[in-house]
Amino acid sequence: MPAFHTRRRIEFADTDMAGLCHFARFFIFMESAEHELLASLGTRVITEEEDGQTICWPRVAASCEFLAPARFGDVLDLRVEVVCKGRTSLTYGHEISRDGTPIARGRVTTVCCRMGSDGTAQPIPIPKVLVEKIGGEPVDSSMEQA
Amino acid sequence: MPAFHTRRRIEFADTDMAGLCHFARFFIFMESAEHELLASLGTRVITEEEDGQTICWPRVAASCEFLAPARFGDVLDLRVEVVCKGRTSLTYGHEISRDGTPIARGRVTTVCCRMGSDGTAQPIPIPKVLVEKIGGEPVDSSMEQA
Amino acid sequence: MPAFHTRRRIEFADTDMAGLCHFARFFIFMESAEHELLASLGTRVITEEEDGQTICWPRVAASCEFLAPARFGDVLDLRVEVVCKGRTSLTYGHEISRDGTPIARGRVTTVCCRMGSDGTAQPIPIPKVLVEKIGGEPVDSSMEQA
Amino acid sequence: MPAFHTRRRIEFADTDMAGLCHFARFFIFMESAEHELLASLGTRVITEEEDGQTICWPRVAASCEFLAPARFGDVLDLRVEVVCKGRTSLTYGHEISRDGTPIARGRVTTVCCRMGSDGTAQPIPIPKVLVEKIGGEPVDSSMEQA
Repeated sequence: MPAFHTRRRIEFADTDMAGLCHFARFFIFMESAEHELLASLGTRVITEEEDGQTICWPRVAASCEFLAPARFGDVLDLRVEVVCKGRTSLTYGHEISRDGTPIARGRVTTVCCRMGSDGTAQPIPIPKVLVEKIGGEPVDSSMEQA
Repeated sequence: MPAFHTRRRIEFADTDMAGLCHFARFFIFMESAEHELLASLGTRVITEEEDGQTICWPRVAASCEFLAPARFGDVLDLRVEVVCKGRTSLTYGHEISRDGTPIARGRVTTVCCRMGSDGTAQPIPIPKVLVEKIGGEPVDSSMEQA
Repeated sequence: MPAFHTRRRIEFADTDMAGLCHFARFFIFMESAEHELLASLGTRVITEEEDGQTICWPRVAASCEFLAPARFGDVLDLRVEVVCKGRTSLTYGHEISRDGTPIARGRVTTVCCRMGSDGTAQPIPIPKVLVEKIGGEPVDSSMEQA
Repeated sequence: MPAFHTRRRIEFADTDMAGLCHFARFFIFMESAEHELLASLGTRVITEEEDGQTICWPRVAASCEFLAPARFGDVLDLRVEVVCKGRTSLTYGHEISRDGTPIARGRVTTVCCRMGSDGTAQPIPIPKVLVEKIGGEPVDSSMEQA
């Protein structure tokens, strides 16, 4: 599948006393872009299955490089794509820019899990329908991170 | 200098609908532990100098691995130490655990900057007094990240 | 001036472990709607004046009634209008709904302030150009809240 | 029961570009103080009952007056007490100060609810054990807010 694009404007509550967008907000921006990508594929980051089970995608790793400051009112262009597809995990690569200027670059790995009623999260294979929509290279279980 | 230790309890507002502490909150936890470490060394992450200049420490990179879920009410043990000291940058290594169980492991690189009145951030050498307090290996400018 | 309308989708990070949008997020939603209203009038909640002074609008009161739960993915309709115009203050009335169902109703009072270099906030009359754009009833200084 | 007291330090992530603690954070501070009060009474804001049901306390109203600015590093004294006890609801009164200076004053009304598996929240009478611990005036159902 091709990269997914979306935009968002930096809000006042995203800023901190240094006058910049607070760095932790970029992880929210990336998460939201991922969720829009999933919505574009007809699914959600958390779903209630017919049998009453909850499937969701906890994060096992997240990283971000901050390349240039961003400020209140800036409109950010968010680009996200699946850069690694495992049997149970997906890794997303994110690029955030403003008018073509790179602002941040990140990577987030999520694992498809069945949530137990006791609060545990059990990794399960990515649903076939999603695997097909993502397409690309065959699943490489040796890359599995979880 | 030895590692710095602190604790914090996961609040209701830290959780999300999956019933877990939201992953982006861990970056806030790490930032706050870093700031407590700086306070223990007699300084702050943002200071107003005598000449009216503002010195602060924007982040250039942040990463975290999430090793086990954490929930509302959990008391987290936060351990932070300087793992890399450059001429203008500090990289902090973080370990977050609960009753000895590893919960998350992260790394954050910050750069000492003079903030211009026009909103720009200019990297400057880490103040000598702080370099001495951190101690350890001599500054290795080849490791510089920014 | 007529009421201003905007929309936003509830994000995963807006939710809490009860499965609902966390109540404090509604204050962010209301703030953001207010800032969009100000943008529609050609101004911002924080401005740097020609003489180097900063003018901004700290909040002196905020309240919200939560009428029905809202969840991840819900698209909220936000309606905001100036319900009270003082000499130095503006009170905004907010109505938040989803597909016509009332979700929340709030009120926020802000005061136009000049920020001193020492961090103080000094109330000042609302700029004439903004008073005219808001229009409506003459300024009633007896209603002043700050 | 007497008023409950706790403290917290304003974190960097609590601030905004005006250099102050962001107003919406005060609602988090009040919520957290309420939860500490509940913990001091041996309960929690969300509990899993023996029959698998979830009991929690959604908010139906929240308000706050902001009396003086608060900044990064400030240590806030939080005072909370039950100011109104209904059959199904509790209203908390909050006072936030710094070294004796009033910073904010707020009020939050919560309703004891049984959460249905379909996501609905059904108001139920406050558990007797909690009613007794809170003590004070007899329950006045005419004050009920929900």
